[in-house]
Amino acid sequence: MARISIYDSTLRDGAQAQGISYSVEDKLKIVERLDALGVGYIEAGNPGSNPKDLEFFARAATLRLANARIIAFGATRKVGIDAGEDANLRSLLKAGTSAIAIFGKSWDYQVQEILRTTLDENLAMIGDTIRHLKRHGKEVVFDAEHFFDGYKANAEYALKTLAAAVDAGADTICLCDTNGGSFPHEVFDLTSVVCQRFPRVAVGIHCHNDSDMAVANSIRAVQAGATQVQGTINGLGERCGNANLCSIIPNLQLKLGLECIPDEAMRHLTSVARSVSEIANMLPNDKAPYVGSHAFAHKGGMHIDAVVKNPISYEHVNPDQVGNTRRVLMSEVAGRSTLMARINAIDASIGKESPETVRIVDKLKELEHEGYQFEAAESSFELVVRKMLGRYTPFFELVEFKVIVSEPCINEVNSSVIIKVRVGDQEVLTVAEGDGPVNALDRAARKALERLYPAIGEIRLTDYKVRVLDSDKASAAKVRVLVESTDGRESWTTIGVSTDIINASWQALVDAMEYKLMRDQETLRDAR
Amino acid sequence: MARISIYDSTLRDGAQAQGISYSVEDKLKIVERLDALGVGYIEAGNPGSNPKDLEFFARAATLRLANARIIAFGATRKVGIDAGEDANLRSLLKAGTSAIAIFGKSWDYQVQEILRTTLDENLAMIGDTIRHLKRHGKEVVFDAEHFFDGYKANAEYALKTLAAAVDAGADTICLCDTNGGSFPHEVFDLTSVVCQRFPRVAVGIHCHNDSDMAVANSIRAVQAGATQVQGTINGLGERCGNANLCSIIPNLQLKLGLECIPDEAMRHLTSVARSVSEIANMLPNDKAPYVGSHAFAHKGGMHIDAVVKNPISYEHVNPDQVGNTRRVLMSEVAGRSTLMARINAIDASIGKESPETVRIVDKLKELEHEGYQFEAAESSFELVVRKMLGRYTPFFELVEFKVIVSEPCINEVNSSVIIKVRVGDQEVLTVAEGDGPVNALDRAARKALERLYPAIGEIRLTDYKVRVLDSDKASAAKVRVLVESTDGRESWTTIGVSTDIINASWQALVDAMEYKLMRDQETLRDAR
Repeated sequence: MARISIYDSTLRDGAQAQGISYSVEDKLKIVERLDALGVGYIEAGNPGSNPKDLEFFARAATLRLANARIIAFGATRKVGIDAGEDANLRSLLKAGTSAIAIFGKSWDYQVQEILRTTLDENLAMIGDTIRHLKRHGKEVVFDAEHFFDGYKANAEYALKTLAAAVDAGADTICLCDTNGGSFPHEVFDLTSVVCQRFPRVAVGIHCHNDSDMAVANSIRAVQAGATQVQGTINGLGERCGNANLCSIIPNLQLKLGLECIPDEAMRHLTSVARSVSEIANMLPNDKAPYVGSHAFAHKGGMHIDAVVKNPISYEHVNPDQVGNTRRVLMSEVAGRSTLMARINAIDASIGKESPETVRIVDKLKELEHEGYQFEAAESSFELVVRKMLGRYTPFFELVEFKVIVSEPCINEVNSSVIIKVRVGDQEVLTVAEGDGPVNALDRAARKALERLYPAIGEIRLTDYKVRVLDSDKASAAKVRVLVESTDGRESWTTIGVSTDIINASWQALVDAMEYKLMRDQETLRDAR
Repeated sequence: MARISIYDSTLRDGAQAQGISYSVEDKLKIVERLDALGVGYIEAGNPGSNPKDLEFFARAATLRLANARIIAFGATRKVGIDAGEDANLRSLLKAGTSAIAIFGKSWDYQVQEILRTTLDENLAMIGDTIRHLKRHGKEVVFDAEHFFDGYKANAEYALKTLAAAVDAGADTICLCDTNGGSFPHEVFDLTSVVCQRFPRVAVGIHCHNDSDMAVANSIRAVQAGATQVQGTINGLGERCGNANLCSIIPNLQLKLGLECIPDEAMRHLTSVARSVSEIANMLPNDKAPYVGSHAFAHKGGMHIDAVVKNPISYEHVNPDQVGNTRRVLMSEVAGRSTLMARINAIDASIGKESPETVRIVDKLKELEHEGYQFEAAESSFELVVRKMLGRYTPFFELVEFKVIVSEPCINEVNSSVIIKVRVGDQEVLTVAEGDGPVNALDRAARKALERLYPAIGEIRLTDYKVRVLDSDKASAAKVRVLVESTDGRESWTTIGVSTDIINASWQALVDAMEYKLMRDQETLRDAR
């Protein structure tokens, strides 16, 4: 199996993403996860640029890594000075890594207009810098910035910059699509040219996603002969991000049979992706190929039936291979077979054509038409089905509530709720205050019921979402509320829909409490 | 300029995305945006599947579209029956569209194992269905489901399914990478084979993003001869989504010179992408190529210097071309000049370094930290600035309000609001009922103020949105309310933020009324 070297830049180019700011601890944690995943290189920062990076490199030097080499990254020497006197190069060496990446210009326009120097001086800057680092015994990767744009503008000069690096002893020359505007056919053709011209060095590829083709471009470069792929976990990076290693690694290894990481590590891919999101404090991309929470989620009815028959019907790989899981969603377009599985979990005797099933399907369509959406609120869905099947005994009944919101408010909180609930022939009347009417209602309901059902006290609401359904109806619009609850052991999500946000919230809160009481009752019954 | 037909499936395949559930109103709004963008086809639903789609097609038939044809989508006839007797085909025809898309199997495995019929019957199903629709005068697109996987398994049979469609009169045969597992080189090669084999029909491409290469695959198919590209706005779709038209359209048109939409419409691309996110209530993807809010945002110091010198340094296209904007992060430099333009519109004498400017910047930072976001609420922003500059005389003052919500409710409406406002030394006390507390509050405030300011009667609320900001705080979470209002001449958007949805709504409603009164006063002053 041919081997491709994976070069991760989550900590360096990934840190250019908007909203990212790693602490040293964050960086060390990510290094450990990447090393366990089995990447070959971890480009971890620009040691001259800030004190945090200096501290990081000092601490990283003490880690025992099984697979990865840490890379310090920096620019070629400045115009017109000796490499040995360049402060940035000194810091690079001080970082103490065994490998160093140097970026230099390969686009004539950039040399003349941005660097404002001569084409020859730029070649000398590349050569001098690399020779200097090689004299210090470093492995050197040369990043040819803007290589593809540079080649299109002046092919001869772009190749000269690579030759300067190779002649000076660079171990790898990496072709960068810095602006992310290149197309797969161009990347393939130009990478082929470079691989033929420089057969003795490794060729790398570094893509950005501005044309939404960074993954494809990286794959095409490998198919043209590149053996090192640079990218980041989750495609983190400036603007539209860098090439996403979470897609590239399985594409190369599972589809093209090119080894990138140890086989057993592939199953950690999803977990690595999610922990990097966590550490970087970025919302994970649910739609992310291979590692997203929706990547193997099925919604369409026919798709679900077929996936149940055989997963290859609508899955390009087995989710287990990358440590992800299959999910089957409920919705108006969901198939009868998903629904039957749920119904049969409650009552195994009900068939596909039973009158109960027909009634449930009709009810679901009606509710979805009203704005309910059960794919995210499976617990409310279960309650609906149980109630329709007569498999649900109510735990309590609302007699009435009254919400009072006053502005200006005299106390910390502006809302009070008076609530009366009935359990059997007992009525409980109580009142609670809160920060806003929904908060007050939540507290009042719990306070009333906790006296009769202490288990209600275990419930904690962990998420609350509101979505206005027909917002052009303005203040008379319908709203959908989703509430996520936990009792520390299990989590569940419930839903409410109404033109009144308080009523919608009430429905979701009631479902949350009913679901908890029902589950506890079942657990008790099973235990007997 | 060669012309590529853009076939949008945001409303059909896009609706398979987790979390998407369009109302009929949502769908009609999206149709109008897509038509204005200039796409050729809008695949809008499966009319047999649910009541919402039936209602949609009836209403869509009354729209006057400038560019797009609406497409109804459905399966080939069922196994073993006559096409004329197939209920699904009957619904398809009943939708009344001039063009219909039919999907059928092209992978032998799927025919035998999922459909459980013979290979010949599948060919007959394709042929019969298309002939039936052609007899009814329809334009027919044949979607060859799983074409690429099918071809790899049994090339001869996959091509036979296409031949069955072509022989029956299909206008377009569309190659679907249903599982999204194909690679650019495969898509190019197989599309070339099909274009050579069937030179008389249009060839389409329909990709999914499971390997993160849907955009590249679509581009490669066009380079191999396909002339129709199917995809969705923002890449909405099941699992990892469909090919993203927001990337494909500019890639083809701006980079390869192939006309997809009118040149002048390209500048609406970003706005269409954002309004589809809004309507679908999906968080927009900031990193999206071309249309994301980070797509042209620059963070790195060197990058910013270079971009300032010349944008092509780090931008593959000019953001204006797609209606996006460059953003320079890191410093207030960029923000300051926009801000100054606003401040100077109110008071031309204030300079960049004035103490007023410093105070406004501090206040804005504080408000943004609390969750206010003025990008979408410029009218509230103007009020904040005016108030800080002492350039605002209050029109009224809230003395108090009391909101009462009762469940169960005796009447149609469950909420009442008692409100007292003061104007000068006059106090007005009034009460209103409503469908939910926000509606009641809106009515009460208008009722109270209209007596003193008849212009308040001209205001109509046209949009109301709620976003929960820190949803993990559950029922005590902060909410952001955006209200859009119009008086028939102008529209304006205002904002409120609070842990209490009623208070947040109140802030936005007050700003909406204050803005209206202030504008009227200015108009009057200008007229003198």
